[in-house]
Amino acid sequence: MKSKPGTVELAHGAGGRATAELVAALFARHFDNDWLARGDDGAVLPAPAPGERLVMATDSHVVAPLFFPGGDIGCLAVHGTVNDVAVMGARPLWLSAAFILEEGLPFADLERIVASMAAAAHAAGVPIVTGDTKVVERGKGDGVFITTTGVGALPPGRELGGARARPGDAVLVSGTLGDHGMAIMREREGLNFTAPIVSDTAALHGLVEAALATGADIRVLRDPTRGGLGTTLNEIASQAGVGILIEERQLPITAAVAAACELLGLDPLYVANEGKLVLICAEADAERVLAALRAHPLGRQAARIGQVLEDARHFVQMRTALGGRRIVDWLSGDQLPRIC
Amino acid sequence: MKSKPGTVELAHGAGGRATAELVAALFARHFDNDWLARGDDGAVLPAPAPGERLVMATDSHVVAPLFFPGGDIGCLAVHGTVNDVAVMGARPLWLSAAFILEEGLPFADLERIVASMAAAAHAAGVPIVTGDTKVVERGKGDGVFITTTGVGALPPGRELGGARARPGDAVLVSGTLGDHGMAIMREREGLNFTAPIVSDTAALHGLVEAALATGADIRVLRDPTRGGLGTTLNEIASQAGVGILIEERQLPITAAVAAACELLGLDPLYVANEGKLVLICAEADAERVLAALRAHPLGRQAARIGQVLEDARHFVQMRTALGGRRIVDWLSGDQLPRIC
Repeated sequence: MKSKPGTVELAHGAGGRATAELVAALFARHFDNDWLARGDDGAVLPAPAPGERLVMATDSHVVAPLFFPGGDIGCLAVHGTVNDVAVMGARPLWLSAAFILEEGLPFADLERIVASMAAAAHAAGVPIVTGDTKVVERGKGDGVFITTTGVGALPPGRELGGARARPGDAVLVSGTLGDHGMAIMREREGLNFTAPIVSDTAALHGLVEAALATGADIRVLRDPTRGGLGTTLNEIASQAGVGILIEERQLPITAAVAAACELLGLDPLYVANEGKLVLICAEADAERVLAALRAHPLGRQAARIGQVLEDARHFVQMRTALGGRRIVDWLSGDQLPRIC
Repeated sequence: MKSKPGTVELAHGAGGRATAELVAALFARHFDNDWLARGDDGAVLPAPAPGERLVMATDSHVVAPLFFPGGDIGCLAVHGTVNDVAVMGARPLWLSAAFILEEGLPFADLERIVASMAAAAHAAGVPIVTGDTKVVERGKGDGVFITTTGVGALPPGRELGGARARPGDAVLVSGTLGDHGMAIMREREGLNFTAPIVSDTAALHGLVEAALATGADIRVLRDPTRGGLGTTLNEIASQAGVGILIEERQLPITAAVAAACELLGLDPLYVANEGKLVLICAEADAERVLAALRAHPLGRQAARIGQVLEDARHFVQMRTALGGRRIVDWLSGDQLPRIC
């Protein structure tokens, strides 16, 4: 098949002149840093400060469509991995980015995505220091997939992790739930008659630092992405060997997301977020942490939504708006494929 | 479309129960280490030794077919990134692995791939400490794509890089050229009547350490993967602002690879290797380095193939077997798509 001008060709992934030109004209130009400019097989980076440990996290991004209200696969790929590093308590330092392009992808789309990644990385202060580009034949990919890996530095003594939740702890979220997932679904399903929904995709390391700076005993930080709040809480309950009880009335959900969920028969508890934190801390520190979250631009609608319980079954439960209790089980189907 | 039993479904990428089960039953079991077992969003890792810098490298692997003589996409994904870290002069420490699975991929294939990755990581002594799994719909991917990112530690004072090649330096390769690419092509084209060719996929950090342990002034290390030796030498010539002259008679190429290349009209200079080093060192050290390479199981057929020249045009040239000279240009087409 002859390629159209202005689109990605198999030669761009062959490692020869076309690959070198693509890297120079697009990736190195937008990501613009000395590590990439060196053109070696990897980046040489300074060591973290004495006593700091490293944190490493990776995510492949396959979201469809590539562009959506509030963002695109490019900024999402930066935010997603910055957040995975940040919720470990670490300061995100560097990102790598590996692209799998489908033959025929318009360069204009690719450039828009790369520019968005560059802007997100710049805003987050986390440079993209090394990368890779592969091209697959038409019909063997879907536009572009982006895998980012992040490395960060974890200060001495900072210990966070799902296993640290304890009975009595408070459960907080940093804002409204389900915005990212429903922004994608609304776009995909063409629900133009419902109110607009904008993805919450954002880098959360500043918000994380604001919470940690309170000195509170924060046990767990998570970003409830794929699978949403319900899945994240089940993971934590299982890791820590505890139960969790949340209050439906306390869950911050916008009217637009609630309406779109109802229309599509989706439960907002399982809808992905890309700019929200779940935070579990000692009960005594909860108000202080909540105040710190609300003082940050990304946490204005933070809420206390529940507590950790002793429960040998490791159930996540919800007290409903009507006062009953229901189990919030693991998501068991493919509610929202390719949401991130 | 209803999924067949024993195959990957979209639910395996939705982040819920099916994803958790897949991770536990397959990835955590095979990769078996404490970091993965913790089940957090990333891995917390010890800092490198004082004075050491970090090296970070990433590669997406999209090789087709998934299984080939001498290896598969799993071990290739480990070797490729271990080698990118090693050729920076660093000791590879940790890998991340992100999978993009196509709906319908047989679990048996996935398990074979994951087991091969695990074996390769174990043999290399580089654990896979964090990962991600996404699933795309049938016809939006191609079985499995694997992106690995590696982090390594670079000892103080060790400086390698394409820009360090100097006129007069010797150019060495660690063994025969083109084995990986022609193993793939032979499989893809069904050339059963020609002699078998086995991929050279291997982790090279031991060979790199053997070369560096000589104390020689090694300027550049590279693994000539996609685009082959010809492309790698052009990259170095361009980075260092030099010319390079290689000797056709000195190039180690097996009879099987030479025959298959001739049959398919391919130039072995541009065919991918996945277990070979290009090494540029001070002329005075060349024999010592060559001896060290040959003493290692992965370097027995190492050869000195040329030298670095002053050349303002940054040409790579080859003295042919007949005594003439020809330009070895950048690979300009898509000679071998999806070779790694």
